Amino acid sequence: MIAEIYITLKSGILDPQGKTVHHALENLGLENIEEVRMGKLIRLDFGSVSKEKALELGDEACKKLLANPVIEDYEIQIQSAGK
Amino acid sequence: MIAEIYITLKSGILDPQGKTVHHALENLGLENIEEVRMGKLIRLDFGSVSKEKALELGDEACKKLLANPVIEDYEIQIQSAGK
Repeated sequence: MIAEIYITLKSGILDPQGKTVHHALENLGLENIEEVRMGKLIRLDFGSVSKEKALELGDEACKKLLANPVIEDYEIQIQSAGK
Repeated sequence: MIAEIYITLKSGILDPQGKTVHHALENLGLENIEEVRMGKLIRLDFGSVSKEKALELGDEACKKLLANPVIEDYEIQIQSAGK
């Protein structure tokens, strides 16, 4: 099972990297973007564990290391290993 | 419409950041992970454009700036602006 973890900044938190990308896209001619927010995608391959176990381990990884709960939200999606 | 862009390294490409995270998680006691791959999540808010237009603009943003086609794959998902 693969746990795909999506880490995003909470909505009130400033995102300077997103702002920079926004300006760069505008300079390239994409002028109708209202906002750009940057996040992280982390794919954890747990091999042949159950879906529930993968979700539990993914959550533990986020809590222990991957996400900063003060400024970030995270979401976990479990996929079978085909992808 | 919001275009969520998921950028991942192609499968043959080395991912030193993923390896580092993998080791860190092992040191924290998560020992049953087979592989960690890092990617990027970029959320582009296009305001009130159509779904098709958001997909087209998201694709253009990836091609012009966000993704490096030599080493990265990208995937775009369109969401209505509620989220």
